[in-house]
Order: sequence, then structure tokens, then C-alpha cells
Amino acid sequence: MVQVCNKGMDFVLESIEAITQVNAHLKQIEDLAAVYYREVSENQIPILSGGGSGHEPAHFGYVGKGMLTAAISGPIFVPPCANDILKVIRFLNRGKGVFVIIKNFEADLREFSQAIYQARSEGIPVKYVISHDDISVETSNFKLRHRGVAGTVLLHKIIGQAAYEGASLEELERLGLEVATAMATLGFATKPATILGDNHPMFQLEPGNISFGIGIHGEPGYRTVPFQSSEILANELINKLKMKLKWQDRESFILVINNLGATSKMEELIFTNDVLEFLALDELEIVFTKTGRLVTSLDMAGLSITLCRLQDKKWLQYLQAPTDAFGW
Amino acid sequence: MVQVCNKGMDFVLESIEAITQVNAHLKQIEDLAAVYYREVSENQIPILSGGGSGHEPAHFGYVGKGMLTAAISGPIFVPPCANDILKVIRFLNRGKGVFVIIKNFEADLREFSQAIYQARSEGIPVKYVISHDDISVETSNFKLRHRGVAGTVLLHKIIGQAAYEGASLEELERLGLEVATAMATLGFATKPATILGDNHPMFQLEPGNISFGIGIHGEPGYRTVPFQSSEILANELINKLKMKLKWQDRESFILVINNLGATSKMEELIFTNDVLEFLALDELEIVFTKTGRLVTSLDMAGLSITLCRLQDKKWLQYLQAPTDAFGW
Repeated sequence: MVQVCNKGMDFVLESIEAITQVNAHLKQIEDLAAVYYREVSENQIPILSGGGSGHEPAHFGYVGKGMLTAAISGPIFVPPCANDILKVIRFLNRGKGVFVIIKNFEADLREFSQAIYQARSEGIPVKYVISHDDISVETSNFKLRHRGVAGTVLLHKIIGQAAYEGASLEELERLGLEVATAMATLGFATKPATILGDNHPMFQLEPGNISFGIGIHGEPGYRTVPFQSSEILANELINKLKMKLKWQDRESFILVINNLGATSKMEELIFTNDVLEFLALDELEIVFTKTGRLVTSLDMAGLSITLCRLQDKKWLQYLQAPTDAFGW
Repeated sequence: MVQVCNKGMDFVLESIEAITQVNAHLKQIEDLAAVYYREVSENQIPILSGGGSGHEPAHFGYVGKGMLTAAISGPIFVPPCANDILKVIRFLNRGKGVFVIIKNFEADLREFSQAIYQARSEGIPVKYVISHDDISVETSNFKLRHRGVAGTVLLHKIIGQAAYEGASLEELERLGLEVATAMATLGFATKPATILGDNHPMFQLEPGNISFGIGIHGEPGYRTVPFQSSEILANELINKLKMKLKWQDRESFILVINNLGATSKMEELIFTNDVLEFLALDELEIVFTKTGRLVTSLDMAGLSITLCRLQDKKWLQYLQAPTDAFGW
């Protein structure tokens, strides 16, 4: 796929106009579909993330105090091109380098890697982490898919706050690897996304059916079943997460319930209650819960569960620290 | 309509379970579909609001520091009954009385008025304000409909913070009246709401069409037209709001863009940008902007604009004050 830098960007640039007018602490990086935090300290390592658009409030909504220093977007569901990412890295670098959080999608990896390679060759120290929390199953070969989905926001917050508190580039890399490997995400959709200006759904899903293990780019899931109840959905997802994370009683976990966009807040809350009940049965200690529309897929309806084992108590402090990022 | 206190409340009680588990500062008032702020000072006048459920994060999402002291919900789109409201008023009263914020719907007024009447007869001083910001037009008689819709959140925040800073019951009543009469709201839907567990939309709206002046309880709007562009929608709504608010160049206003639920965040941002451009053409000074899913109607897709004339600079301080209410 040839990446064209400037096509299909009208929606994104209009969004940035609104975001920077409404949030005084955010500013556009000139000529780029990128937003940065105006009040960042010169002493901290800047944190960059980004990807395709259509996942709002990700990623611009996570730019702010103790989270991302900047985010860059491509067109809907298409990552920004390497050259633009490189410009943002140069813009952010104050001599100490830049840390980058990348979601595990082929196109994202290609563009971000190329930008990082180029930046390093210019003498800018860059380290990164790849979020790969998705544990859906490929229907063709039954292998796990490790796309980067809702768990990515935990990396934004934990790494962002660690950088704010003065962590070095090497410390951020170590922390990123620890957090990225401690978590897993699985979700379902009740309605596929439709691309703006197009009335066709991105995959087929009859009303009343749900699809397990959907992606955030309109990819269909691994299994479609009729909707029965929120409890049964919670049970299916938690069983699969338990197989992956292999928890013991009384372990401490961080919980994220992500609303993929068009699910009502009431349904999100009812599902959250079911999830908390199942986790209580396993006597897990849920030390931090975040719910809401965190990483969406336009107007897709659906929910996902992310569980992250609390391997270090510092992570909890990082999560609890205040931020002015509007998506958190 | 006979009000049955305990029917159709399962969804609401499960939501409350989730809310109180996830938010340590919120607690259920025993045996009631009501939530209160645990850390409220004994010295302030407690603020109560509520209504039917299905509008999440309203109203529980506005309980917190410098906002509501408590909120009570009825079943979906049905207000709580007077007797339950009365119990919450008694629970909140510490001798200085209680201030209540009510949305202007017939059933809400009936239940809240009865509760207030009874509380007063028991010697509890109660004052209230009615939010009536909606300016849609009745198709039958061309009269304005003054339902309480998204602008209600401005009352929650401004009155809540004034109470937190020590305003008396009389001062809150005066402030409430000033704010309630300074604002107007108008919106449109692109997709009707569906009640949970029911696949039938609450009014007919063909895909690709939009309905102006919809309600938040599944009421249809005053005019249905094919969707053309976000700009044209913004223009129509702002013209109607200007006819009502009759602003002059360079006046200061507060802006709320409310997402009715299922509209994507990207569409909300694009619409926000269009609204800001039209207001800039009129040289209005927008001193404060709040966007997001503030008062929803289950899974209805649509957006509304609220404009509130800044009659007093104190209002801006009240709006800017920090809060831990999860819906703000």
C-alpha cells in the first residue's frame, strides 16, 4: 500500500481545529496532523504516540500533563507516514531523545520504524514500546492476534507519568516492556463501524448478534453468536483472559472497560458490573478501574475488557496521578 | 400515569453497583436508586438533581466535589417517584435545607414538586430551579418547547460550585434563575434511540436523514431533512439560537456541544469546529467550551448546541473549578 501523506485528512485537520480551540493546553504542530502539550518540561523525555484516526479520543485525547507530549494521526484507520512522524520526533527532541508508543499493526510498525531509523541516523536517541494487548483468535489458524488495542492507554498513562517524574529513556523502555507484557484485551461488537460519508458497515453483523474478538479497524471477529446477556459475554471474555493471564486468587489487577463508541453508557455500566462480579468470584483485587470511550472505532458498538497484572505498585501511583488530557 | 417505584429498576441498580465500585467517592443511598458524594462538607447546602435514567452519565456522573451532592434516578425515561425523592431530601438535610435542580418535564415536575411540598411541610427548607433550555418548536402549534436538556449540566456545575463555596439557599435560588434564563439549547438526531432489550427505534428516521429539535426521551423532532453537511446543520441551529438569545457582536458566551450518545467523537469534533467557526463570524467571545456525551438518550445518535450568555464573571470561575464528578 502506497502511503499518501495528504489524502483523506480533512476530517482529522478539522478535529484538530476543534481540539486546540477547546483545550488551551494543546497546540497543533505546524503543517502536521499532530498535537503537542504546550506546558511540557524541558527536563523530561518527550512521549509520542499516534496511528490512524477514527479512534477518538485516542490519540490526541491523551496528550497532556503526565501523559503523551505529542500525538500524530493519519487518515481514518491509516497510520501517519514515516516522514511526518520523523518531523514530530525532531520537533520534540530537546537533546535527550524521544520515547514512542506504537500499536502493533503492520502499517503502523512500518511507518514508525522507518521514522525511528531515520531519527537515530540523525543522532536523535529514540526508544519505543509496541502495545500488543489483543488476544483474539484468528479464525483461519487459531493463532492469537496481538494487535494493539485499548490497553494502549495504560501505556500512555504509566509511561507518561514516569517520564513526567524524570525517568530516563532506558527506564521508560524497561517499564514499557513490563507493562506491555503484563496485560491482555478481548472484546466484542454488537454493530460494525461505518466510515464517515459512507453508509455501508465494514463487516456484516445482523441486529441481535454479537461478534467476539473484533478489531478497531473494522476487522470482523472470530465468532458470531446471538446476543443472550451481558453476563454471558462477560463470562466468555474473562475465561479467555484468564487462560492467557493465568491469575491466582487474590492477585492485584488493573481493569479497563473500553466502549468502542456507540454502546450506551448504561450498557457499559451494566457490563462493568458483570465483569466486576466475575472478577470478585476469582477473588482478584482490582486496584484501579477505568471505563469509557477510550479507544473507539468510529460508530462501532461494542465493549472490551483489558486486564493488566499489577507487577509494581508504582504503576498504580502513575495511573492515579492527575492529568489534563481530555480523553483520560 | 401511575408511578410504580420499584419496576424496571434492574438496569439502574446494576449501573449504581458499577459506579460505586469504580468511584470511591460515590456511595449508594441505602435502598434507593440514588448516589451521594461521601466527602461533602457539613457546612454547604446540599445540591440534589435527578430524573429518568437512560441519560448517562447524567445524573450520577455529576455527583462530586463542587457539583451535585446527590442524584436520584427512575427507570428508563421515567422520573423517580416523589416518595423516594423525599427520602433523599431528608437524608441530605443537615438543618440548612436542600437545593434541587429539576428538568422541565411534566412527570419530573409532578414528582419533584410533591417531594418538595412534603419536605417543606416537615420543616426542611427546600428551594429549587427548573432547567428549561430546549428551544425546539412544536410542529402542531409552532410554540417553543422548553424541556430541560443538555444545558442542565451548566446548572449542576455553576450551582454546585457556588454551594461548595458557601452560597446560601436564597443565593442559590437567585443564581439558578439567572443561569436557567440565560441559556438555550437546540439539537438534531441522525438515529433514534432504542430501549434496552427492544430492537425497535423510538421514532422513524431513515438512514441518511436528520431530525431537528429532538427530545432526550425518544420524542421526534420538528423537521426531518436529508443530511447534507455538518456545516449546514451548525448553521441552522445557530440561526435559531441567535433568534432566541439575540446576541450582539463581542458578547461573551459559554458553549456546550452535547453528544446524544452514539455519534462518533470524530463527528462531534468536526461539528464543534463548524460551530466555533460560525460563532467566530459573529465575533462572539466563547469563554468556556464543554464537549462530549453529557446528557445522552441511550444509543441515539445526534448532537446539540447550548449557548449561555455569561452575565456574571463568577460563573466562569465556577465552571473552571476542578471536580471529581466522572461525567464532567
